[in-house]
Order: sequence, then structure tokens, then C-alpha cells
Amino acid sequence: MEFTNKVSINTERLLNRIKELGGIGMKGTRLAASDADKEGRDKLVNWMREAGLDVEIDRIGNVFGIWYGTKNKNEAPILLGSHIDTVINAGRYDGCYGVLSGLEVINTLQETSFVPNRPIAVVAFTNEEGVRYQPDMMGSLVYVGGLSVDDALKTVGTDNTILGQELERIGYAGTKEPGFLKPHAYIELHIEQGPILDKMGIPIGAVENLQGISWQRITIEGSANHAGTTPTHMRRDAGLAAARVITKLRERANASCERTVATVGTIEFKPNAVNVIPSNATFTVDLRNPNEQELQEEEQELANYLKELSASEEVYIKSEQLVRFSPVTFDKTIVKLVEQVASGRGLPSIRMTSGAGHDAEMMTSICPAAMIFVPSIDGISHNPKECTKDTDLVSGAHVLLDVVMNLAGK
Amino acid sequence: MEFTNKVSINTERLLNRIKELGGIGMKGTRLAASDADKEGRDKLVNWMREAGLDVEIDRIGNVFGIWYGTKNKNEAPILLGSHIDTVINAGRYDGCYGVLSGLEVINTLQETSFVPNRPIAVVAFTNEEGVRYQPDMMGSLVYVGGLSVDDALKTVGTDNTILGQELERIGYAGTKEPGFLKPHAYIELHIEQGPILDKMGIPIGAVENLQGISWQRITIEGSANHAGTTPTHMRRDAGLAAARVITKLRERANASCERTVATVGTIEFKPNAVNVIPSNATFTVDLRNPNEQELQEEEQELANYLKELSASEEVYIKSEQLVRFSPVTFDKTIVKLVEQVASGRGLPSIRMTSGAGHDAEMMTSICPAAMIFVPSIDGISHNPKECTKDTDLVSGAHVLLDVVMNLAGK
Repeated sequence: MEFTNKVSINTERLLNRIKELGGIGMKGTRLAASDADKEGRDKLVNWMREAGLDVEIDRIGNVFGIWYGTKNKNEAPILLGSHIDTVINAGRYDGCYGVLSGLEVINTLQETSFVPNRPIAVVAFTNEEGVRYQPDMMGSLVYVGGLSVDDALKTVGTDNTILGQELERIGYAGTKEPGFLKPHAYIELHIEQGPILDKMGIPIGAVENLQGISWQRITIEGSANHAGTTPTHMRRDAGLAAARVITKLRERANASCERTVATVGTIEFKPNAVNVIPSNATFTVDLRNPNEQELQEEEQELANYLKELSASEEVYIKSEQLVRFSPVTFDKTIVKLVEQVASGRGLPSIRMTSGAGHDAEMMTSICPAAMIFVPSIDGISHNPKECTKDTDLVSGAHVLLDVVMNLAGK
Repeated sequence: MEFTNKVSINTERLLNRIKELGGIGMKGTRLAASDADKEGRDKLVNWMREAGLDVEIDRIGNVFGIWYGTKNKNEAPILLGSHIDTVINAGRYDGCYGVLSGLEVINTLQETSFVPNRPIAVVAFTNEEGVRYQPDMMGSLVYVGGLSVDDALKTVGTDNTILGQELERIGYAGTKEPGFLKPHAYIELHIEQGPILDKMGIPIGAVENLQGISWQRITIEGSANHAGTTPTHMRRDAGLAAARVITKLRERANASCERTVATVGTIEFKPNAVNVIPSNATFTVDLRNPNEQELQEEEQELANYLKELSASEEVYIKSEQLVRFSPVTFDKTIVKLVEQVASGRGLPSIRMTSGAGHDAEMMTSICPAAMIFVPSIDGISHNPKECTKDTDLVSGAHVLLDVVMNLAGK
């Protein structure tokens, strides 16, 4: 294998395309299957056709551009990609960077004398963000068989539209069955959407796994009483109990050596009056850990603590699971390859965990998959201020290029 | 002095009047200067006139019924009372019990051969609850000179009415200047509105002081970030900081041996999303302690803790004072007398602190004052379920009677 590569991508072409695609849609907003999404898809398909790729659309609207060589048609392809739909008021890098870099890698390889021993394809999955239609990562979920395409097409959006009808309307209800291409490997290049690489000044993240996610809604019921006339020892304060859970979760996260993250993002007290002890506190817990067993331990620890608290604070506690995804481990060989080619380019890298969900998570169920991260300045994402330095964007694309040349070389 | 008394009040008359007054107003609601309040006042004045009392109304609408003896006109009166306005969906005891017991004491003394050496009067102060017009305890506040009567009469209510006009309309804009009677002592009999006497099974509380109250609104600003991609050590979690304040306040309350009570009754997170670390947490703190120095210490401890927290959690913290009342100490001689006469009746009593505000708090600035509490079942008040057992209502009235006979006897 060759980890030192002198081939360069066309920096200007990549950066211009990111800018051009990011300019589509009001404030960069391209919700899945909207008019703006159609405009973005049309632009992408146009670039694919200019590169002579075979463009295929599957029934859930995933867009593929496949570069077949003369002698590799029967081989499983290397698939590169991500998504080009966005959240509301999005940045221009989330998703688009991975798709356009995949395309750029193909353009670059076409312009060199490289002869890949298997097809190289780029994909833009439908509705990764899940803003207009639930669930998120829908295109890749359907593609790997985790949700039936017929059920997915019936999804009713937040604007009461039906996804299948909207895909028809914008001309992206394809005919290929999801799963029609069985990749040899799937590699997704993405901005980190977190602060780690930026804070450490490291340009490349070799993403080795993706956190499992457990969301719970916890409701605590105590007793509303007068804030002045109720002695402390007679209180059944639901708000205090909630505060104890929040601090306990931080204690667990601290003890986990950065394995577990725990967030209480929402809270409500009732009756919510200055001089009344809260009778009710409702809040959510977002627990994440890259290891299934550890995540289960955290869930169990929380359950145990709630039981203790119920006794010590004399409150009733109910918890409901809202979301549960198991952690995903990426392909060790590809992760190692990412590190090796980064090193070959003189780019420092670290192994890391993805804290957010990505299409690559779904793809692990049908092929070896991995992700490459580049820094997000201040960790900002899902925001027009989302930014990655041009040099980092180029470094990431080079690492992707080198991984592909290694996987598709002799 | 004589602490053993055989004179009995007319139990049936007292209980019937409580029931009758409590039945006025939709769901027992008699907001200050409303039609229902007029109906309640008319009934009270009627009972006062039946007892031959001199009825006087002052400019803020406080209603006095004064029993002058033939030889005591020049003496300062013993004033008994409370208020008959209510919160919305009120119970029937809060306030009314003190006024009607005061009247009952006068009725009883008239029916015995008791000759008081000073006038005995009963008062119903205007707008103690402060629901329709702010501030609360307005009638007694104006009476002692804490707020000018002219300013008070201009108060605009939550329904955009003006208090002065409403008092005119219901016929209770009197002509006496507030403060026209300078009492020898003021004694207020009241339900506890808290659980202590009920839980302990003690019928009489000799209220020796009234908690100081400090309300603050605290705003914590951290940084909103992704719940999955932001490592624990890089978080600036405003919600966690708020939770730490709540648990710290409980720690202080526990360490105070039931001197301090602390309540966080309201809270709000922003942006309040499951998977976003809160950038902002706003909550209120209700701190109470019966000693001014101790209350100041609690405020200072909280300020110190917020400073520490600001550094340790890397958050900005702002606190605003919303309400501040100093603690009040009642007259030691009268408090002791309450204990003595209770004992004379074979009624167990304890010294206690009032956690809620009362008109007696205002009266301490112009005369010796004290309060007598009777149990509230389960501590419930400001609620139609508010309840005190008939035997406890009678016991409280007997203690009030005996205190008056001691203060107005030879």
C-alpha cells in the first residue's frame, strides 16, 4: 500500500461547488424534497453528468453518481457520500462537504491516470436531517432495509405534505430499489460539528465509532406547598429532586473519562410560582456513550439513582424512553487507513467518536464503513456561522482521495 | 394575672359566622373592593352594629368595630383583627377567622360581667391578599404610614380598575385618616397555613416572629452546544449551574436547623431542546429566615456561591432582588401571655415563626403586636380544601379571649 500521495484535488473546484450549493435556498435552507432541495439536487446531478457518471435515483430519492471503469463493472463499488438536505438556517458544510468531496475525488481520479479496480460512486442520501419528515437519516435507513420504502414514502411532514408525493413533484422519485448497489466500502467525510479537533488544532479525525444515544423523559411528582410555611424536612420538592438528577448525571459523566456525555436540555416546573414548592418537574435526559454495555450501565445507574431519590425525597418518579440507538463501531481497517494516509500527507490525526448521527451509521449494517472528520470552528454547526477553514476542507478531501486510491488500487 | 379562665365563647355563633362569610362570593372568592368584598363587609358591619360597636371606616377602607366602655374612652384600645378579602378560589378561614374571632371575643365579653379597662376593637384590613391590587397587606401598610393613602388609592388593579374608585363604588371609602386609632396592642389570630401544628398535633402556636423574605431572580448564561459532540470538559452548561444552586440552597437550609427555608419555585432553560446544552437558565430563589442577620448571611452565602460557580462552570451569573422584607419580632410579653393562657386552658402550645406575611407584621411598627396560630390540616391554604377542625377554631378563640381579658383586665 502507498500512504504517501502526490495527487492533489482541484481546490478551487471543490470550494466553489461548496459555495454554489450552499447558496441555494433561502438562508441556505433546503429541507428534504422541497423546491430548494430540488434545485440543489439538479445542480449535483448536473455536475455528476458533466463527469460522465451514471446517475441513478432510487425509490426513496437517494441520488447516486457511479463511475464505472471499463474492466470493473462486476466489482462492488467504493461508495462516498453524505447528504445535501439541510436544517433550517443551515451552514453550508454539514453533509454537502462529504458529497462534493466524493465527487471531487472522482473528478481528480478521472484527471489522473488512476485506474480503479472497482467502481467509485458518490451518493447524496435523502432527508438525513429529519426536519420536515421523521425519522432522520431516512434515505440511508431505507437503503439498508431498516425501514420499508413504502412506509417511508407515506411519511407525513410537519407541513402536512407526503414525502412520496413531494419526491414525485420535484422529480426525484426514482425507480431503483434501495439497496441496489452493494458497496465494498462506504466512507463519509464530514465536518465534526463539535469542538474537539478545533480546540486541539488537529486537522483530521479518524472516526472509529459513533455514540449510542438514549433519550428519556423524566417526570417527578412531589407536593406543592407554601415556600414560607413548609419546614424543610416536610418538603417533597420535585424541583430539588430534578436538580439532584442533573448534578448526578454530571458526576457520572465526569467519572467516565469523557466516555459518557449527559445533557439535561429541557425542564419545566409546575406550578412554576416563586413562592410555591414545585409539585412537578419534567425534564429530558440525553445520554451518549460509544459502547453499548457502558451505555446500558449508565441507563441502569440512572434508574438506580431515581429509585434512591424517590425514597429519599419522597417523590414519585416516572421515566419514558424517547429515543434509543445502539452505538456503532466503524471498520477497523478503514479507520487505520485514514490515520495512515493522513500521516502520509503530514496531517496530524486523532481517533475519535462521533457524537452526532450520520448516514455512515446506517451503512455499517451492509458494508464496512468509516468516517473522516475535519474541524468545525468553535464546534458550531446547524447554524449559518458553521465554518471550516479552506485548508482543512482540502486536507479532508485529500485524505478521502488517498483512502479511495488505497481501497481501489492494485 | 389570671391564666385560668372559665368563660366560654359562643361556639355556634362563631362557626356559623365563619360559614356564612365564607359562603359569600363565587367559590368563596372575594377580591379586595369587589362586589363580593362589599357583600362580606356589609355582613361584618351588620354584626358589628348588632353588638353595638362604633363602626368606623378609614380612607383606605379598613373597617373598625370599637367597643367603648363607659369609663375607658381615653385609653388606647386593644385591637384584634385580620382581613376578610381573599385570593381566587379561597378557603374560608384565612383572615376571616381572625376578624370573626375578634368580634366573638367582644360579643362574649359583653355577655359576661367583664368590664375592660380600655376599649376593645376589631378590624378588617383592606386588601391583605394583594391579588387585585399590589402590594399585599395594603390596608395595614397604609394604616401604619408605610404607604401614603393617596398613592394607595391610585393603585391600578389587574382588571385596570382604580382602588379608590372601587372603594367609593362599594361604599367603603371612609373618612377617618388611617392611623386614627393608636392601639395599646394588636393581636391577630390566624390559621397557620403550614403543616407544623397539624403534624405535631399541637393546637396553639405562640407566634414569636415572622420570617424575613428575600426573593431573587438569577440568570445564568453559558453556551448552547450539541449534546452529543461537545465533550464534558468543554461545556458551559447553564442548566447544570442552576441545578448546583438548587442543591446548594437545600444544603444551606439543612445546615440551618430549620431556621432558613429556601425554595426555587420557577425555572426556564433556553433553548430548551433535548439535544442542546442549555445556554441560559433563569430561576427564582425564595429565601426566608426569622433573623435579619441570618437572612443577610444566607444572601451573602448565595452571592459567594454564585461567584464560585461562575468561575468553575465558566458561566455568567446575574442576580436581581425582586422582594425584600426584614424579619419581624413580635412582642415578647404578649407571646409569653399566649403560652400562659393556652396552658391555663390545658392547651399545648409551641413557639413558632410565621412563614407567611400578615397584617400583624405591619402593626409592629406602631404598637406591641403578636399572633396566635391554630393548625391547618395538611398545611393546605389558599385553596378551597383549607380546613381547621372546629375544636381547634374554638381553642384559638379562647386563647384570644383570655389574652384580651388579661390585657384589658385590672
